Amino acid sequence: MSYLGVGVSPGNVAVYHHGSNLKVIDKRVRLTEVVLRCLICGLALLSALLIGTDVQVKEIFTIQKKAQFTNMKALVFLVVANGITAAYSLAQVLRCVLSMIRGRVLFNKPFAWAIFAGDQVMAYLTLAAVAAAAQSAVLAKLGQTALQWMSICNIYGKFCNQIGEGIASGLLVSLSMIVLSAISAFSLFRLYGDNNRKSNGRW
Amino acid sequence: MSYLGVGVSPGNVAVYHHGSNLKVIDKRVRLTEVVLRCLICGLALLSALLIGTDVQVKEIFTIQKKAQFTNMKALVFLVVANGITAAYSLAQVLRCVLSMIRGRVLFNKPFAWAIFAGDQVMAYLTLAAVAAAAQSAVLAKLGQTALQWMSICNIYGKFCNQIGEGIASGLLVSLSMIVLSAISAFSLFRLYGDNNRKSNGRW
Repeated sequence: MSYLGVGVSPGNVAVYHHGSNLKVIDKRVRLTEVVLRCLICGLALLSALLIGTDVQVKEIFTIQKKAQFTNMKALVFLVVANGITAAYSLAQVLRCVLSMIRGRVLFNKPFAWAIFAGDQVMAYLTLAAVAAAAQSAVLAKLGQTALQWMSICNIYGKFCNQIGEGIASGLLVSLSMIVLSAISAFSLFRLYGDNNRKSNGRW
Repeated sequence: MSYLGVGVSPGNVAVYHHGSNLKVIDKRVRLTEVVLRCLICGLALLSALLIGTDVQVKEIFTIQKKAQFTNMKALVFLVVANGITAAYSLAQVLRCVLSMIRGRVLFNKPFAWAIFAGDQVMAYLTLAAVAAAAQSAVLAKLGQTALQWMSICNIYGKFCNQIGEGIASGLLVSLSMIVLSAISAFSLFRLYGDNNRKSNGRW
């Protein structure tokens, strides 16, 4: 698959025999895909680093207390999920670059299914991780008086702010993955199209 | 759209001019869709009821304490999300039944886009709600010693068990919605198929 239309050798241009309108849409979809994959890779790394390196030490009644992301399972889950997403996105970007250099990669159904499945898993994984981390963050910020869980952000203000930035970055990763998974669904299921049927209406 | 192949009048059978293999796949996909929508409607209602009606009162040092789902924002979110999902699924099941009775409904692109968008939103909504509720449940079950948040399931055992059943039911709703959103993506994007292109490979 040649993203961005780069690496198209003259002998293969005949593949674009369908309407020029569809050709323009195709190019845009592929451009969006590459941009999103790069964006996701960067943001997932940023989110993992922001949360993973966040440490704050406070002295409370002569006892030193340290706040770090490992204190909350949900934050560990988010760091791991973001790490996996960054590695996955990097591999996908490399695939795109390779296909651009080689000029042509056959886009068959099993390959399209693999990309679709990978993107779906990543979209749901990142969303679940962000939702769990956001829930923990709300509890840490507001506490839960009914359960006598006290807010910890009054004590570890700087720590909480950096975690908040990490979660916001993770949310952007998740939203971008959702768009990307719709794009890969489009790329896969159009291969199952049956144009003749459309004109007769569908059941 | 005639799900289950019911309501096909003889004059319209000609619509099935494509291979019998594809016809069998089509029927199975539609049968799966209807079964999943009914299942989701029932499970979402069950989950909302299990969590929404869960109350346990305990007397601790002569003070009566009541545990209920409104004590945790994540559980309220899950009940609301399940309520919306149940109503949405019921509407979709009614649409399927109506199309079966009428015999034929035109399946055009805007309609397919609406169903696709609705299913996607529901899949991500239910997953986010379940992830947040599961995170709260883990905290309630195990506590978080580093933050001095104590476990509450030692005190409200019966309450916690019922919440756990509600979350498990919500997880099934979420997984079913994920499969369903893939089915509606298939139904939509195949309309954009370009069969001629397949034989030439894809870029």
